[in-house]
Amino acid sequence: MRRVGKQTIVFQDPPLILNHASVVGPKEGEGPLQKTFDLILDDTLFGEKSWEKAECKILQAAVNLALDKENLGRDEIDFLLAGDLLNQNISANYAARQLAIPFFGLYGACSTMAESLILGAVLVDGEFAEKVVAAVSSHHDTAERQYRFPTEQGVQRPLTAQWTVTGAGAALIGKGEKGTRITHATVGKVIDLGIKDQSDMGAAMAPAATDTLIRHFTDTGRKPADYDLIITGDLATIGKELTHQLMEQQGYPLGENFADCGLLIYDPTQDTHAGGSGCACSAVVTCGHLLHSMSAGMYQKIMLVGTGALLSPISMLQGESIPGIAHAVVIENY
Amino acid sequence: MRRVGKQTIVFQDPPLILNHASVVGPKEGEGPLQKTFDLILDDTLFGEKSWEKAECKILQAAVNLALDKENLGRDEIDFLLAGDLLNQNISANYAARQLAIPFFGLYGACSTMAESLILGAVLVDGEFAEKVVAAVSSHHDTAERQYRFPTEQGVQRPLTAQWTVTGAGAALIGKGEKGTRITHATVGKVIDLGIKDQSDMGAAMAPAATDTLIRHFTDTGRKPADYDLIITGDLATIGKELTHQLMEQQGYPLGENFADCGLLIYDPTQDTHAGGSGCACSAVVTCGHLLHSMSAGMYQKIMLVGTGALLSPISMLQGESIPGIAHAVVIENY
Repeated sequence: MRRVGKQTIVFQDPPLILNHASVVGPKEGEGPLQKTFDLILDDTLFGEKSWEKAECKILQAAVNLALDKENLGRDEIDFLLAGDLLNQNISANYAARQLAIPFFGLYGACSTMAESLILGAVLVDGEFAEKVVAAVSSHHDTAERQYRFPTEQGVQRPLTAQWTVTGAGAALIGKGEKGTRITHATVGKVIDLGIKDQSDMGAAMAPAATDTLIRHFTDTGRKPADYDLIITGDLATIGKELTHQLMEQQGYPLGENFADCGLLIYDPTQDTHAGGSGCACSAVVTCGHLLHSMSAGMYQKIMLVGTGALLSPISMLQGESIPGIAHAVVIENY
Repeated sequence: MRRVGKQTIVFQDPPLILNHASVVGPKEGEGPLQKTFDLILDDTLFGEKSWEKAECKILQAAVNLALDKENLGRDEIDFLLAGDLLNQNISANYAARQLAIPFFGLYGACSTMAESLILGAVLVDGEFAEKVVAAVSSHHDTAERQYRFPTEQGVQRPLTAQWTVTGAGAALIGKGEKGTRITHATVGKVIDLGIKDQSDMGAAMAPAATDTLIRHFTDTGRKPADYDLIITGDLATIGKELTHQLMEQQGYPLGENFADCGLLIYDPTQDTHAGGSGCACSAVVTCGHLLHSMSAGMYQKIMLVGTGALLSPISMLQGESIPGIAHAVVIENY
């Protein structure tokens, strides 16, 4: 069995991330990670008539860029695993129509990049596929329209709010001799401690991140210090601090090697309040900064913990709290 | 490689469907398949205050029933793969919260049962899991509210419209010596021939069903007559007739062994117009009628072709056409 403990997959011949690409909007392109992105858009419409059509085009662009870097045609990819935040996953669905690659649609809210990396690695390691692409997108304005208020309305955002990243990340997964590999994956449970504030997603997701981290350490016998970097997807200031506290309470204090994609992507002067969020937050930081840093030898062993808030506007109107999920993916160089 | 041709997975040690359960609403319980369902609800609220909460409870009930039949606890299940039609997959997300099984959220519209069976079988055959549950739900009134008009508004439905099935199906997948197995899976591409009528989903999905069927026959060298039954998910009257025509044009005429879950679930007197649809349509027919018929030896080798229409109300308002997808799952007794 390719597993240890209850929730952790151990890949037998750990698949390589053969290449990767990231596309971001102008705000992300002005942030501290600007040099790590492949394409920075001049505006959030990308030549389209709606933000939704733009998001779909951004996702396609990320996939095409990742394939171009490896000189691969789309017909050389066995499966596309993709998702986004929009109702009925339309960015991924319509991108898959244009890409014409056999398609698995996924939904894990902002954890979808981690989910797609896990299932992509499963397909490759299990010898169901030679090459797959894992890709996700989000867009600030499509997400605001759908989950909160139309951008044009100019509603004031509370300081606990996060800023949905406009962008997409794509990772090409396959086999190879040497490189950056996906070695383990800890698949999360849905955890809900009763947070109901839609403007405080970090707090809602922190218990799920904690649960998955502890399960990972219990399953593998590893400890936080075994990783050069443990990086959550989009907990941002409040969620990261809560995760720090929860992990300390549980006997697994996290040290200086603990970071969050939502805190890396924007500069505090960019007025995003608690930090970044959205499927693209962990995706563009992973498919930009993190994988570039690993290629450059800055990190040898990292753990990405994709975090997602599994609410919908209707579940909130019906009085539900916000369930969170977190999936961990271990990425190592060798 | 566990694959033939471009899109077809061939399972090496084909996983068994160890057990299965189906829960349906009262209308489905009055239909021709009533004796094949495990639980028929008295009303569509199932003791809850909203249809959305009811759908979530129906999904949980189907999973719990499938586990109870095998005397398994939820902690004996490695992964839950689930999805539904609602925005942000809330039925699956909130059901996964209550079930507390490590969770992969999927979205393939009405094809999600086939998608979850495929990825569930991948996890088991690839030795990433011992036992997984694949489960999906839909609900007539939650779907009408979200995709079309609130039920209370009483809008007249065109004759091409289909009736979203209220219900959920769950299949427990694992290893075993003898039984009903998942042997092959053909993963579909997104196909869109430009249909824009949201009240005619069958026509939008027929080209995807045709594409996947032809790819399956090309990949495997099999022909339609090799199956005791080829059954699509929810093409209903119009989509099924179009698929007949398209398959004949392509040189693969389908015979008497071609059926559609959306045409089996309701009686023409039940006033559902073109037939059934929704994630639960193929799920309850599979986890009720089809798997019971296979256990009883009525069929030895069938192919379920889950069909999905990957639109959203927003994509329609923005002038898009309706992309379709179809995933094929071959189920055999031995």
